[in-house]
Amino acid sequence: MGFCTEVEDVISMSMTAVTSLLEKYNIDPKQIGRLEVGSETVLDKSKSIKTFLMQIFEESGNTDIEGVDSTNACYGGTAALFNCVNWVESSSWDGRYGLVVCTDSAVYAEGPARPTGGAAAIAMLVGPDAPIVFESKLRASHMAHAYDFYKPNLASEYPVVDGKLSQTCYLMALDSCYKNLSHKYEKMEGKKFSIAEAAYFVFHSPYNKLVQKSFARLVFNDALSDASSIDEAGKEKLSPFSSLTGDESYQNRDLEKASQLVAKPFYDEKVGPTTLIPKQVGNMYTASLYAAFASLIHNKTTALDGKRVILFSYGSGLSATMFSLRLREGQHPFSLSKIASVMNVSEKLKSRHEFPPEKFVETMHLMEQRYGANNFVTSKDCSLLAPGTYYLLEVDSKYRRFYAKKALANGSLANGH
Amino acid sequence: MGFCTEVEDVISMSMTAVTSLLEKYNIDPKQIGRLEVGSETVLDKSKSIKTFLMQIFEESGNTDIEGVDSTNACYGGTAALFNCVNWVESSSWDGRYGLVVCTDSAVYAEGPARPTGGAAAIAMLVGPDAPIVFESKLRASHMAHAYDFYKPNLASEYPVVDGKLSQTCYLMALDSCYKNLSHKYEKMEGKKFSIAEAAYFVFHSPYNKLVQKSFARLVFNDALSDASSIDEAGKEKLSPFSSLTGDESYQNRDLEKASQLVAKPFYDEKVGPTTLIPKQVGNMYTASLYAAFASLIHNKTTALDGKRVILFSYGSGLSATMFSLRLREGQHPFSLSKIASVMNVSEKLKSRHEFPPEKFVETMHLMEQRYGANNFVTSKDCSLLAPGTYYLLEVDSKYRRFYAKKALANGSLANGH
Repeated sequence: MGFCTEVEDVISMSMTAVTSLLEKYNIDPKQIGRLEVGSETVLDKSKSIKTFLMQIFEESGNTDIEGVDSTNACYGGTAALFNCVNWVESSSWDGRYGLVVCTDSAVYAEGPARPTGGAAAIAMLVGPDAPIVFESKLRASHMAHAYDFYKPNLASEYPVVDGKLSQTCYLMALDSCYKNLSHKYEKMEGKKFSIAEAAYFVFHSPYNKLVQKSFARLVFNDALSDASSIDEAGKEKLSPFSSLTGDESYQNRDLEKASQLVAKPFYDEKVGPTTLIPKQVGNMYTASLYAAFASLIHNKTTALDGKRVILFSYGSGLSATMFSLRLREGQHPFSLSKIASVMNVSEKLKSRHEFPPEKFVETMHLMEQRYGANNFVTSKDCSLLAPGTYYLLEVDSKYRRFYAKKALANGSLANGH
Repeated sequence: MGFCTEVEDVISMSMTAVTSLLEKYNIDPKQIGRLEVGSETVLDKSKSIKTFLMQIFEESGNTDIEGVDSTNACYGGTAALFNCVNWVESSSWDGRYGLVVCTDSAVYAEGPARPTGGAAAIAMLVGPDAPIVFESKLRASHMAHAYDFYKPNLASEYPVVDGKLSQTCYLMALDSCYKNLSHKYEKMEGKKFSIAEAAYFVFHSPYNKLVQKSFARLVFNDALSDASSIDEAGKEKLSPFSSLTGDESYQNRDLEKASQLVAKPFYDEKVGPTTLIPKQVGNMYTASLYAAFASLIHNKTTALDGKRVILFSYGSGLSATMFSLRLREGQHPFSLSKIASVMNVSEKLKSRHEFPPEKFVETMHLMEQRYGANNFVTSKDCSLLAPGTYYLLEVDSKYRRFYAKKALANGSLANGH
């Protein structure tokens, strides 16, 4: 799992992700017309993370950039993404790019959930003629009032989690979205939707076991609806469970095993290539789904040309959407090959620094004291950070946060003071 | 100023506003396809207020409702509104209505800012053929990194405020948006924009004095650009200040006085009708701008037919947008007359209950203890609430919040348990 030490946070990570994207695609900051952030990691309850990111654009004189932060647990990034895509399609679009940032640090109190944490920021550029295209009509949401995972203790960074309920909520929302999306597809295309209609399925990935269960759940849905994607042998294996009520089926271990067995070959083909980064970095909250999607681009790249990919975004509380993308190789610099090479996933995973567990626990103790606190200076130690990474210098007596940027390979440096 | 007693909060207020809107316009909850909330009053850092509102829609089986919460100080409601409008114009629109909710409780620590507080929730319906039409191309934003007002102390509901800086930031953002919007207008229409181009100007209204200063600032801008909206005598009065730098001009008392004097007749005509509710209820954060706009509809109603109205939304931190609306009387039930009669502003202002200051201070003390707390039961006293108002019953040991609805005049009752 990845985690922030005392010199990084969701603001520094997102500043790093945005500057990196602009540099690597050679985009003038003036070309950005909208910037949206999805996050559930609150460092300030009023001032958006987006306003911190404006520092990157103000230098070039571009302050006319719409968008703020979107919030609902791990779903905020998807909300931000939809907002940006809708903007590009609306009459208020002014021809410039949209930029979406998902940034979170997932930390848990001591206990079984703690090792499921993670930390990441992901930046995505939105504009016309992209290699990743939204099939906007193929999209279904399930939103409801639930207390499965939430953060009501405002003084603590840790969530209140009902793990069992959260898993049930996730699967229930998944079922609901899949049925609703299938229904919309059938109305539109005049034929049934099943897992055969998409080459890949990408899930919000708090931990891989839930991803396995989720895909098996879609296979179970297909079996129940007698879809041709599942052969007769598979349907036979799953038919004993067809009479279970929804609630029973979410808890039934035999169904879980049987459906995962039937799903196995499809899982390896349609889901396996999406699991690399989430498995390596842990839960990244809003960034999790898009880290899974990045794994797919890394693993399959140009083989994705012409393929449909279904994504499932889930945020506790709860908000969920299943939506469809069509991929095409596209034109440089916005081609799948270029995206894969810019992301450079293998190299980045390789270059990570490994901490002993004690060091992680020690860091968590320090972070507990610093959460919501003022008047402290960090070690300013950026030796483990990659060149170009932003890091936290201090939080002053007025709670103002100051950052610096580690020199790039070419020696340039920026100071947040 | 309005404030929440221990039985109300941003969740209960928004539930009241949404159910009231659906009932008064006779809208089936199934007709809502998107619901966005703007708020800076955080009761949970992860679970959105939108998910609480889903309780109203789940009953009818409608869980396919996109949208979450948008956050940046008082600007969140405007972000939510833009998101909803863009959705209706996008390919992902499915023909249903969007619904936008602005809900906030503005409370300050003891000191000079405290009496500027307020509390409100406003719900707005978004769809085609509306009497209030967005002129999407006539819109300019100013977004920047500032620490003028923010909420970094996570355990406290009170903000950190630099009042002087906040006012300067507001006026600076106003200048920037006005110039940018004028520039866009000139490119589009081939003529100068000035205050003469709009019948009314509506401002985010933390307190009325800032609204007066803001409009005077636009008049000063017009004078500087030699717009025909200001006569020669006015320009002469303001010309001594033309050499001030931006920073000097924001602090200059003589300029303030002179520009307000020149602006006076325009202010009475173009701004006066928008100030009723903010003056009476106090700062409402995200709802403030839309309460000012509601004042205009209340005061001018059908006289607004064909008129252009310019709105200025500001959220500290900072995010600001100036945008243009065109009004037309429209068709029942979505006509300006119907909206004015449904809002029933005079009656609502008249029916308020007056508290002595001691009772308010006592309530603030109680709220300080309960902010972010669990395991308490409220008085459940809803005697002062209007029929149909939601109120808080308890927060249990798991921090879960339970609400009830005060019986409507016809005796129907809903319980949140």
